[in-house]
Amino acid sequence: MRSRTPYIAVIGGHEATDAERALAAEVGQRLAESCAILLSGGDGGIMEASCEAAHRAGGVTIGILADSNRSHANAFLTAALPTGLGEMRNALIVRAADALIAIGSGWGTLSEIALGMRTGKRVVALRTWAVTPPRPTDLSLMIAATPEDAVRLALSEVIDHT
Amino acid sequence: MRSRTPYIAVIGGHEATDAERALAAEVGQRLAESCAILLSGGDGGIMEASCEAAHRAGGVTIGILADSNRSHANAFLTAALPTGLGEMRNALIVRAADALIAIGSGWGTLSEIALGMRTGKRVVALRTWAVTPPRPTDLSLMIAATPEDAVRLALSEVIDHT
Amino acid sequence: MRSRTPYIAVIGGHEATDAERALAAEVGQRLAESCAILLSGGDGGIMEASCEAAHRAGGVTIGILADSNRSHANAFLTAALPTGLGEMRNALIVRAADALIAIGSGWGTLSEIALGMRTGKRVVALRTWAVTPPRPTDLSLMIAATPEDAVRLALSEVIDHT
Amino acid sequence: MRSRTPYIAVIGGHEATDAERALAAEVGQRLAESCAILLSGGDGGIMEASCEAAHRAGGVTIGILADSNRSHANAFLTAALPTGLGEMRNALIVRAADALIAIGSGWGTLSEIALGMRTGKRVVALRTWAVTPPRPTDLSLMIAATPEDAVRLALSEVIDHT
Repeated sequence: MRSRTPYIAVIGGHEATDAERALAAEVGQRLAESCAILLSGGDGGIMEASCEAAHRAGGVTIGILADSNRSHANAFLTAALPTGLGEMRNALIVRAADALIAIGSGWGTLSEIALGMRTGKRVVALRTWAVTPPRPTDLSLMIAATPEDAVRLALSEVIDHT
Repeated sequence: MRSRTPYIAVIGGHEATDAERALAAEVGQRLAESCAILLSGGDGGIMEASCEAAHRAGGVTIGILADSNRSHANAFLTAALPTGLGEMRNALIVRAADALIAIGSGWGTLSEIALGMRTGKRVVALRTWAVTPPRPTDLSLMIAATPEDAVRLALSEVIDHT
Repeated sequence: MRSRTPYIAVIGGHEATDAERALAAEVGQRLAESCAILLSGGDGGIMEASCEAAHRAGGVTIGILADSNRSHANAFLTAALPTGLGEMRNALIVRAADALIAIGSGWGTLSEIALGMRTGKRVVALRTWAVTPPRPTDLSLMIAATPEDAVRLALSEVIDHT
Repeated sequence: MRSRTPYIAVIGGHEATDAERALAAEVGQRLAESCAILLSGGDGGIMEASCEAAHRAGGVTIGILADSNRSHANAFLTAALPTGLGEMRNALIVRAADALIAIGSGWGTLSEIALGMRTGKRVVALRTWAVTPPRPTDLSLMIAATPEDAVRLALSEVIDHT
């Protein structure tokens, strides 16, 4: 039995293919159906696709915006929070999340994957960057084959620890 | 006619007198009734009193937490966002808000008042610090006599600009 | 005998009167003569006056810049560090300093005074804001009558704790 | 003819092999000989090896520390600046640098590589992570075979743009 709301970040850039947006949408819907709060950068692309689906499924969506205003915020946010931090807000998304689901090919997305791994968060990779260290490390990304998989892996982290 | 949701920060410390908590509660309730999103540091004292009242009135409350976890978050937050930034998160609360209502005597509260004024946000003072520059400045805090006044002044800023 | 280099922040705005600039210059020179590292926002006004005098006296000066580039950095910095954080970088100046000397009337200066007090740093006021809490607090600013006084008070904090 | 001081970040973790430390040391020495200011996280491992060599060659070294105090700062810093930001300070190192040289296998290092690429900085990879996006991107890391190469590539960026 889960004792608290999971906060899951969907990380991905504002440029996205249709296939990536479809993955993001299914992730967003499943998170909302699981009563998770969806965190993201609150912008377009992967962020918008996941928020729109979560919003339509009745979920709570929080956008931690790069800009100092809301002009680029997508229309599917319960709350849109301007930070004015640019790409530095990526670290805040990572910190506020219990686990992360990464989709697509942005460099910003890669920074969030790395910051998540650096700070011991579970990072689930769903068709995103492959990374190879120059020598073996203990930790590696968790690879998901499908959105269903990705959401299950992300949520299990939270359930395991509560 | 207002075209968008106002984001109003209630700024005040975790140490608060009963009188200050009562002011904060009335502010929180009135913000919720006005469909504003209440931003705060998400901790106890003024933050908790305002969030509790807003939450009971059906409002959305967002806590931008100083800690890197949720252990000090109050129980009345729609979303609790750990930042791990300590007092530096005060600047984020200011940035995310359209206007601020300051209550009580914390030094952190004073920093938010100053950052709000520095960045051109409307800052409404409701029984809080008095500040005197060494030589005259153009800008000054807006003083509210009552919670009703404070909320009206804060919301009028948003309405005027949309 | 002092065991380590003191880091002293000179906080003050880019708009300053000649009298304020003269105070800042004397503070900067005395800090350099005491082998302290001078931290500041690295911009004009109080920041420039203190850095110029410290630089001429052979001191190390570090500018923690608001902008994401060096176009507003003054010409007297050993190192100019763009942060792109705007007024949020004030918190970084406070964190990097062992003690702070505040001069003049900027709202940003007031935010640094408040953040310094909030985080337990010694804050020395040299012709700057007077602040009055709505009810008594334990802590108060240390008031200096002269630049000599201000530097002595700031450095004694560091020496006392090493 | 170069008109201004280059700021080059050497990014790499506190855990490093002897071979990686040797690369970092040669990079540090060459940067100092080129009158570049060396930026780093100011901690051990790659950071220490590069700072020590730069310091011995008479260079200026700046540490932007993860902690809120100087207890983990290495002994070879012209200025050690506590931020209390943890891994979030990585973004500040990237912002303050004209170009970055990445060495070794830390996740924090990968985050700096990604943030550097995201924000249009030149990132030179010297025996570090290989990264593969899920679909082709326009940008890629610049690969250096030797420390000499790495320093030349990093400095040419600055010279080209002044």
